[in-house]
Amino acid sequence: MRLPRSVRMIEVGPRDGLQNEMKPVPAATKIQLIDKLSASGLREIEAGAFVSPKWVPQMADSAEVLAGIERWPDRRYPVLVPNLKGYEAAAAGKADEIAIFAAASESFSQRNINCSIAESIERFRPVAEAAGRDHVPMRGYVSCALGCPYEGAIAPAKVAEVSKALLDLGCYEISLGDTIGVGTPGKAQAMVEAVAVQVPRERLAVHFHDTYGQALSNILATLELGIATVDSSVAGLGGCPYAPGASGNVASEDVLYMLTGLDIETGVDLDLLAEAGAFICQALGRQPASRVAQALAAKRAARN
Amino acid sequence: MRLPRSVRMIEVGPRDGLQNEMKPVPAATKIQLIDKLSASGLREIEAGAFVSPKWVPQMADSAEVLAGIERWPDRRYPVLVPNLKGYEAAAAGKADEIAIFAAASESFSQRNINCSIAESIERFRPVAEAAGRDHVPMRGYVSCALGCPYEGAIAPAKVAEVSKALLDLGCYEISLGDTIGVGTPGKAQAMVEAVAVQVPRERLAVHFHDTYGQALSNILATLELGIATVDSSVAGLGGCPYAPGASGNVASEDVLYMLTGLDIETGVDLDLLAEAGAFICQALGRQPASRVAQALAAKRAARN
Repeated sequence: MRLPRSVRMIEVGPRDGLQNEMKPVPAATKIQLIDKLSASGLREIEAGAFVSPKWVPQMADSAEVLAGIERWPDRRYPVLVPNLKGYEAAAAGKADEIAIFAAASESFSQRNINCSIAESIERFRPVAEAAGRDHVPMRGYVSCALGCPYEGAIAPAKVAEVSKALLDLGCYEISLGDTIGVGTPGKAQAMVEAVAVQVPRERLAVHFHDTYGQALSNILATLELGIATVDSSVAGLGGCPYAPGASGNVASEDVLYMLTGLDIETGVDLDLLAEAGAFICQALGRQPASRVAQALAAKRAARN
Repeated sequence: MRLPRSVRMIEVGPRDGLQNEMKPVPAATKIQLIDKLSASGLREIEAGAFVSPKWVPQMADSAEVLAGIERWPDRRYPVLVPNLKGYEAAAAGKADEIAIFAAASESFSQRNINCSIAESIERFRPVAEAAGRDHVPMRGYVSCALGCPYEGAIAPAKVAEVSKALLDLGCYEISLGDTIGVGTPGKAQAMVEAVAVQVPRERLAVHFHDTYGQALSNILATLELGIATVDSSVAGLGGCPYAPGASGNVASEDVLYMLTGLDIETGVDLDLLAEAGAFICQALGRQPASRVAQALAAKRAARN
């Protein structure tokens, strides 16, 4: 296997994860979580979203969270923004990076944000201009990259087209998301290869969900194509909104265990990361959806 | 990725799985399970073990199980045997295949079966002779192939040596087991490559545990080396005996989902397989440890 020597792990737990957890989490707990994640060595940690509190009450306290976290000098704390109003709130909160998003599926775009993919991209143009003016880096998410809950399979060419549109808008990186976790390694490779024709490989990240247990295999398959940026969520925070009860984001602990085993550098400490996961799971009153976290806990319990 | 066109899935749930479940299962339930697995298209289903009922009470009814299952003409129902006495009981029960085992770790061999690796191989010689005389195919398991709970890392050369000894004893296939599930894809490849120097690749199978969530990635990595036989356990039956509470055998449903997504033929039907898993999990009073099974169940529940 030809694999990258180092991988950037992008932690999405405090935003993408907690946004999809049933139980709301107080700002103070989020702040403690993010500080623990910073201490584990993660350098990019999604901290919140400046979205309508009516639609996403879990993220209503994002300004408070941004104000409360310790900002490590070599870390970044991106926040999701849906429009210019959100961008302005994020800028007022001194966000050091923003993330915007589009779907690769028309049906998903319509049902999720009530507009076409093209309209959603246009809606982000003023955000992109403001971020460019303020020198705030902007990351782009493409959802449904390997399948849509309404349409089923999505053509890799469509994913490439949407990715290119986000790149042209000014995103420094495009994160390709298998929102419903249906992808398998061959399909993940075919999709990434199609996108790489339009967007340089070093500007691509992968964002897999573990709904069908395929996330690590998909990551491995895309590492083999030279992808070196991987999104994940501590303790697997965030169930699958389209199959309640099923797993969502791939757990950061599981990704780190695999990368470390492959001798790939990440700069992240597994024990500290698992500790952050245990902390937030205790706050949520649930078990971590990370096999590594479960195995480490079981091993510790057996020893005592 | 260069991958095999078809993969033989070896189902170990009714033996390796149920042997490590806390709750004992009546013979009638095992028989129903095995019949359902046969109907799903699986062609090799481990049906039991002729071991001391004092040590492994879960398998005490293996003769009853062998007598009760429907024997499909193109299926095989191997049973584990530890010695000649076990072989004779298996033969009396008209077992159509047997499995024998050795560890790649001296400490594990001593603690598990109270003898050295070399002694354990010698102990199987009369079994191998009897099976050869009776034309009963014999499969060999090598445990601790990627790590030992007592010794830690295991040298790939040691795994190769033990595999070769089992091959020389007459095993038609050697199944390389990551008993404690600690392996990652690069280490799995290095181990398989070392063994393939001693044992032809087409006589090798892989047997991964999902304790650290790495099983599918490890399978993918070894498929890329030309391995085309994979052990798995329906519903992930069988926890990890060395870390109680953690996951054990990789779930057959998860393996099948990946293989199907990769356009690899198996002859197995996912719905029927998941139904067999749901059946045994209901009998055990627990959830399937298969992400695919959980996702399919959640999807079904959301639809109703």
